[in-house]
Amino acid sequence: MSLLRKDPLSYAWVIFSEENYEHDAGPGAGGFCTPQEDCPFCPGHEHRTPPEIQSLRAAGTVRDSAGWSVRTVPNQFAVLHIEGKLDKRGEGLYDMMNGIGAHEVVVESPDHDALFHDFPIEKITEILWMYRERHQDLSLDPRFRYIQVFRNYGELAGAQISHPHSQIIALPIIPRAAREQILHAYDYWRMKERCIFCDILAQDSPGPRLVYENEAFVVLEPFAAKLPFETWIYPREHLSTFWQMPESQLPALADALKVTTTALAGALGNLAYNLILHSAPLHPEKNYHNAQAKVPDYYHWHIELMPRTMNVAGFEFGTGGYINSVLPETSAGILKKQIAEARGVGETDLI
Amino acid sequence: MSLLRKDPLSYAWVIFSEENYEHDAGPGAGGFCTPQEDCPFCPGHEHRTPPEIQSLRAAGTVRDSAGWSVRTVPNQFAVLHIEGKLDKRGEGLYDMMNGIGAHEVVVESPDHDALFHDFPIEKITEILWMYRERHQDLSLDPRFRYIQVFRNYGELAGAQISHPHSQIIALPIIPRAAREQILHAYDYWRMKERCIFCDILAQDSPGPRLVYENEAFVVLEPFAAKLPFETWIYPREHLSTFWQMPESQLPALADALKVTTTALAGALGNLAYNLILHSAPLHPEKNYHNAQAKVPDYYHWHIELMPRTMNVAGFEFGTGGYINSVLPETSAGILKKQIAEARGVGETDLI
Repeated sequence: MSLLRKDPLSYAWVIFSEENYEHDAGPGAGGFCTPQEDCPFCPGHEHRTPPEIQSLRAAGTVRDSAGWSVRTVPNQFAVLHIEGKLDKRGEGLYDMMNGIGAHEVVVESPDHDALFHDFPIEKITEILWMYRERHQDLSLDPRFRYIQVFRNYGELAGAQISHPHSQIIALPIIPRAAREQILHAYDYWRMKERCIFCDILAQDSPGPRLVYENEAFVVLEPFAAKLPFETWIYPREHLSTFWQMPESQLPALADALKVTTTALAGALGNLAYNLILHSAPLHPEKNYHNAQAKVPDYYHWHIELMPRTMNVAGFEFGTGGYINSVLPETSAGILKKQIAEARGVGETDLI
Repeated sequence: MSLLRKDPLSYAWVIFSEENYEHDAGPGAGGFCTPQEDCPFCPGHEHRTPPEIQSLRAAGTVRDSAGWSVRTVPNQFAVLHIEGKLDKRGEGLYDMMNGIGAHEVVVESPDHDALFHDFPIEKITEILWMYRERHQDLSLDPRFRYIQVFRNYGELAGAQISHPHSQIIALPIIPRAAREQILHAYDYWRMKERCIFCDILAQDSPGPRLVYENEAFVVLEPFAAKLPFETWIYPREHLSTFWQMPESQLPALADALKVTTTALAGALGNLAYNLILHSAPLHPEKNYHNAQAKVPDYYHWHIELMPRTMNVAGFEFGTGGYINSVLPETSAGILKKQIAEARGVGETDLI
């Protein structure tokens, strides 16, 4: 049983999972280039993962056998577990609860060596469809407050297995970064009675930080990018929750992701990044601060791509501040050039 | 001229310093084991750094020449500069100001290969004395709001030069992590009319998370440690600002730091850590939220030691949450054992 403890100074909840110590620090850790014969995610090795939760698979093939194109399973090294009660409790001034939640792995392709940005649009659409299904399903559990979808690509970004996969964690708390965005988006709404994300789109598109746009999505380098080449993908439509996105928009999101990650790979060479999907907390009736506005009014789901070109050092780690040597206008220009070159068109024809 | 931009969603201020791009990403970056003949911090190479700000040196030796034991110079790759006006301004919904501040390097010893935890107490006392001098001096500038002292030890912690050194940054803003602690310490004070740090000391010392204590300092693993073996050093005396610490307590702080870093080196083997000194913001008259309490009432300076046993992955980076595979009670036990063994005494004799 894992445990959640709240840091009384940052209000961050920390998940304690001692059973994963060997997995994190043991000799197997950092074995990034898992040889294919040992890979738990390869077809024919379905018995090496816990039983499958959901999959897209060829007609006539059966659960937990080959024939799938996208496959979701519980994480074998899950840091949270689905069974039990939260049992929120104190210890003097401290707060804690049981490690109840879900920790799933989305295996994105049977192809061990595939790269995400090389997938065709249809394949990325399948992966996003799976994110959406799992997001919606997990959001029904009244114990959960937040669904975190994320993808670690490359060793520098913390990926432990090279076979293409993403992770989904359902949490009984709202994680610190999401909570911060929600509180500050609410501050903004209270002042302006407008969504801050919609205002960012209005100000920056078109503009020098715009990287790409299609009919439903806009790709921007944020004004105060924390990392070189940090890139956010926003839906044009104001919607607080990822799973409420119309299924018809999935191919446009796949296009935005493919174009962006391909441009990042071209610009950065040895690519590593974290993809973070931010969506409103679940059960918004529990989450609004007062009667003036509800989360759906002022939050706007989006994807953050955090390229990892270097390790995070003391200043960043200790202060929560960032030193960035690349202005977002510079990185936007480089990415736009990459996109134009890949399409054989001039930059001005693009957007 | 560097630039500060505020992220409207996290409220983090990001320092943009494009002139450091080559330093961060160029071929020289990551050259951790600087050969001694190229080291800008070695005696005889004083001309390779900007002119010295302050030093402890042998009688009869002169500025910017050998003979020093601790030497503070401006960082050659400073991300903030001392000259100019802040010129706070907006751009639509965004906020920014000029990159005014100070960025100094404390070269801790003439010995290129020395390790911090091997220094004698007297040497560490000298280094802390220098931190305190610089902290006090920089706090006089009315443009600065926060002094951040930090130390990156080891390559995994982001150190770029192996010669023992620390850094001091004076900022015209309050960095995110400090702001968060201050706001939450104030929340606690408003509820309890007590300092949360003093309450943590009262609850945890003695207790299973206590690592070490001497006459003036207490070393604890925090209840919700974000990283394995995260360790905080608290002064017993409630004091909000580091530089106000009596000089007579410097040797006790040196003792606590030496004992703790030695135990961490013993427990973790290939040691890497970030040392972060947290102190109250400057000019507290600008910083209190209302008339009920001032920063000096509810903030308590302290040191955070963040061992870096692995890279920070997507979940941590994107969510601001943490997954920790070692409970603080476990790491406290291991560190206490290390300390007892080093002293040849039983653990119960120690504290």
